Amino acid sequence: MTSQSPRRPRRMKFWGWGFEGESATPDEKKLVLAMAKHRFGIEDAAETPAPREDEFTLTKPRVAPPASLAPLCSSAPLDRLAHTYGKSFPDIARMFARDAAPAPDLVAYPTSEQDVVDILDWASSARIAVVPYGGGSSVVGGVEPLVGGGFAGTLSLDLGLLGRVLEVDPVSRAARIQAGTLGPALEAQLAPHGLTLRHFPQSFQYSSLGGWIATRSGGHFATLGTHIDDFVETARLVTPKGVMEARRLPGSGAGPDPNRLAIGSEGALGVITEAWMRLQAKPTFRAGTSIRFSDFDKAARAVRAIVQAGLWPANLRLLDRNEARNTLAGDGSADVVVLAFESADHDQGAKMRRALECAGDFGGQWDERQLAAGAGGHREGASGAWRNAFLRAPFFREITTPLGLIFDTFETSITWERFAEFHAKIKAATEAAMARATGNEGSVTCRFTHVYPDGPAPYFTFMVRGDRRRLVEQWREIKIVASDALAAAGGTITHHHAVGRDHMPWYRKERPDLFGRVLEAAKATLDPAGIMNPGVVVG
Amino acid sequence: MTSQSPRRPRRMKFWGWGFEGESATPDEKKLVLAMAKHRFGIEDAAETPAPREDEFTLTKPRVAPPASLAPLCSSAPLDRLAHTYGKSFPDIARMFARDAAPAPDLVAYPTSEQDVVDILDWASSARIAVVPYGGGSSVVGGVEPLVGGGFAGTLSLDLGLLGRVLEVDPVSRAARIQAGTLGPALEAQLAPHGLTLRHFPQSFQYSSLGGWIATRSGGHFATLGTHIDDFVETARLVTPKGVMEARRLPGSGAGPDPNRLAIGSEGALGVITEAWMRLQAKPTFRAGTSIRFSDFDKAARAVRAIVQAGLWPANLRLLDRNEARNTLAGDGSADVVVLAFESADHDQGAKMRRALECAGDFGGQWDERQLAAGAGGHREGASGAWRNAFLRAPFFREITTPLGLIFDTFETSITWERFAEFHAKIKAATEAAMARATGNEGSVTCRFTHVYPDGPAPYFTFMVRGDRRRLVEQWREIKIVASDALAAAGGTITHHHAVGRDHMPWYRKERPDLFGRVLEAAKATLDPAGIMNPGVVVG
Repeated sequence: MTSQSPRRPRRMKFWGWGFEGESATPDEKKLVLAMAKHRFGIEDAAETPAPREDEFTLTKPRVAPPASLAPLCSSAPLDRLAHTYGKSFPDIARMFARDAAPAPDLVAYPTSEQDVVDILDWASSARIAVVPYGGGSSVVGGVEPLVGGGFAGTLSLDLGLLGRVLEVDPVSRAARIQAGTLGPALEAQLAPHGLTLRHFPQSFQYSSLGGWIATRSGGHFATLGTHIDDFVETARLVTPKGVMEARRLPGSGAGPDPNRLAIGSEGALGVITEAWMRLQAKPTFRAGTSIRFSDFDKAARAVRAIVQAGLWPANLRLLDRNEARNTLAGDGSADVVVLAFESADHDQGAKMRRALECAGDFGGQWDERQLAAGAGGHREGASGAWRNAFLRAPFFREITTPLGLIFDTFETSITWERFAEFHAKIKAATEAAMARATGNEGSVTCRFTHVYPDGPAPYFTFMVRGDRRRLVEQWREIKIVASDALAAAGGTITHHHAVGRDHMPWYRKERPDLFGRVLEAAKATLDPAGIMNPGVVVG
Repeated sequence: MTSQSPRRPRRMKFWGWGFEGESATPDEKKLVLAMAKHRFGIEDAAETPAPREDEFTLTKPRVAPPASLAPLCSSAPLDRLAHTYGKSFPDIARMFARDAAPAPDLVAYPTSEQDVVDILDWASSARIAVVPYGGGSSVVGGVEPLVGGGFAGTLSLDLGLLGRVLEVDPVSRAARIQAGTLGPALEAQLAPHGLTLRHFPQSFQYSSLGGWIATRSGGHFATLGTHIDDFVETARLVTPKGVMEARRLPGSGAGPDPNRLAIGSEGALGVITEAWMRLQAKPTFRAGTSIRFSDFDKAARAVRAIVQAGLWPANLRLLDRNEARNTLAGDGSADVVVLAFESADHDQGAKMRRALECAGDFGGQWDERQLAAGAGGHREGASGAWRNAFLRAPFFREITTPLGLIFDTFETSITWERFAEFHAKIKAATEAAMARATGNEGSVTCRFTHVYPDGPAPYFTFMVRGDRRRLVEQWREIKIVASDALAAAGGTITHHHAVGRDHMPWYRKERPDLFGRVLEAAKATLDPAGIMNPGVVVG
């Protein structure tokens, strides 16, 4: 089988963020080491070598594909290692601990939808658990083949070779796109048409359209058109019982929306192979600046005023002062709101002025000179620095993890009237949990990634010095407390990172019981052998 | 039971549109009669008396409630007559034919959610089909208790006494509202808080929040926040197996959205008893005008340009020239686009200017003086006349039906690149069907009710002189051809009127087969006795 050497997509290095060969730069490394020393007193910065394939001993594959599927499949150790985890803190920590226990028995690289159908047929009959794999950037255990008992083996279904834009409709501004298409390839194929999906999650370079749809991905933009949910005209879901696909329509009121069952199903009901997606013209008008506040609560109220005014900024990101400092968007003396408008059609100056008025009502201060710089100006200064830090941050884990730093994030949402108390409770609970788990003082910072008229989506980052031998265990202790606090305070366990395996205990409580039973019934209908991403979303 | 005389909500007259006592005005009647004579040659305008309760002989109720529920129930003929049909053309025609065959055996008026639970418990055990009833304005057979065999009886569950706003959160701008609340009562209870749901379907005065959610109602506004779907923070669904309700959240990525199962379920999975709804501040800034085009296709392209520019007008309604004439928005010499912007926060003049530029690119012409009238000005002139005609039109059926006019509407959606051909095909098919069914020449007009970046929602109105003794039969012949044409051309069988019983044959074809099976599985889970609105959406 492996001798047939299937074609493979370009893929992330098996032990960390980025494609093979991509890493933190020497300058970034210097910066992170200085931070570790300054903030956590970590002096010992001896080089910890990155994991190598030959340091792992994988169990023998328990299953082999039939001859007809063998050319698509591999059980080569590097294929298996690369499909063992996503890219969360515990994923990286386990790789640095040279632990790849959940490695799949097989990896399959379908080159067509029929390949997917054939693989699911075989897997259904052979009781092989199938874990759909897009770009592999899950931070919630969504692609880890930890499937429980009752299976003959596990197969990671890598959609990476289904990477093409198949059809573009420039009139309706929509395109039919294969699910394995990663962000940059997707945009590159749309660019000649002057169109964009304009969906830029932090994982943009390493995540796929199918993954975005399956996990209800949130894009970079703060308001209005930012969730992938709203851009799906129709998605094609290959289930073990056949293909489910609705008509391509701009809107419909015919019964519950079939697409909303596929969106967020995280591979538990089937595999998304392609979708018709709504597109936009590329923005050309921009206005942006950053606003400083002396008080986090006042800044939050300014953000609320702006979003409730119906101004729909592209960015409206509140960073608490420590988050601003850590991400180079501020010096730590003020809470910062990054504000930006953009349009492919018309000037955004008036909206910007009105948003600044709202900010001024709550004591916000901004630099008129920066504002006067006009179109494109917001890419410089605080927000430009922030954007760069945002995209580079996931690389830092390969430095912080071997240093023994526990460094993770979680995200949620809550209505405005509960936000202030919610924020205080979550922060306090996470700080206490870090101290209890590690004996060290850690830090918790917060930003808003998305903002709605009825509430924000707060995103928390925590960091604490742990014990290198017990990092995953200590992380888990903190994660449980933080998640319990979210649940108790009425937030969601995930706003856009998805459920995966990590969030199932809290998702089970959050999900209405009867809806859980409906999902089980849906799975029994579409996946009677129960092979699709077992342990995720359903059950 | 009837002697107990349950409390009853105010309700529409059993044989037509409007509350008891409301009718077309003498002036409206004169206008309609003149139109019937002028356009359809109907000279015979002898008074046809409205149906009276004593003209109907209903079958004896087959079931009686237990003593505990008797005070909530009635089998009085007027209660049963009022819950026999919705308000579609065939509904009115059947009432004028003194045919009330589908009348429910019982009508129940719950005064609390516990009443609803108790009624479903009893109905489940007694095999009584339950048809949830909000305002009763369905035009698709959604509330008609025509449930097929296998039931001991039928019960219309009128939510009209659950009409209160229970809680208002002015910070997050949301309210918890009982499902039976009709539009005006809902807005009246929100008004003291300076807030509005801003959901104005044509049936606003006679339809309920629960009905809007159950049928995926579309509001008056043309773009962006207009579908009830997007304003549901969380809906509470009472099913025969218990209550399903998600947390109140501004957004979540935790699995498929549970609310999206309740939204559009049309009573087939349970009864929506209340919902937390997202609200808005009342608009105070307005700009609006109407634009004339010499060519329908060019007007459609102007509409597309405006919606794809991301200007999000409150109104962007293309009326073909005959539709404009019939609804007093034009003189029939030009196709008309009614364009309006509104905001609670900021001036809309710049958006208006940019939208007019787009319209000008396609030859649109408008009156600068009317525009200069400024805020509120768009309520006058063509669009004001149109709005009034729009709200009054459903009353005309009580005049046209006894005259023997078949007068109905259907609505759909399609992506832009298919629209021109789609429009031509649907119009031609409906015209041909009218001629074939009646031997007379009829008219088909079209407007856009809602517009998306990827396509419009065209709304067709047809009218033809039929045979008074065969109106429903002739209507059905036309309806079948028009619906087949929609399906063949790739449109949806309903954009916002819902599926009901009338659209089931086409919905079954439109709905992905596997999704139909998922709905069956969901129903088996939530409603194992299969009593909830049988024949609608599921099966």
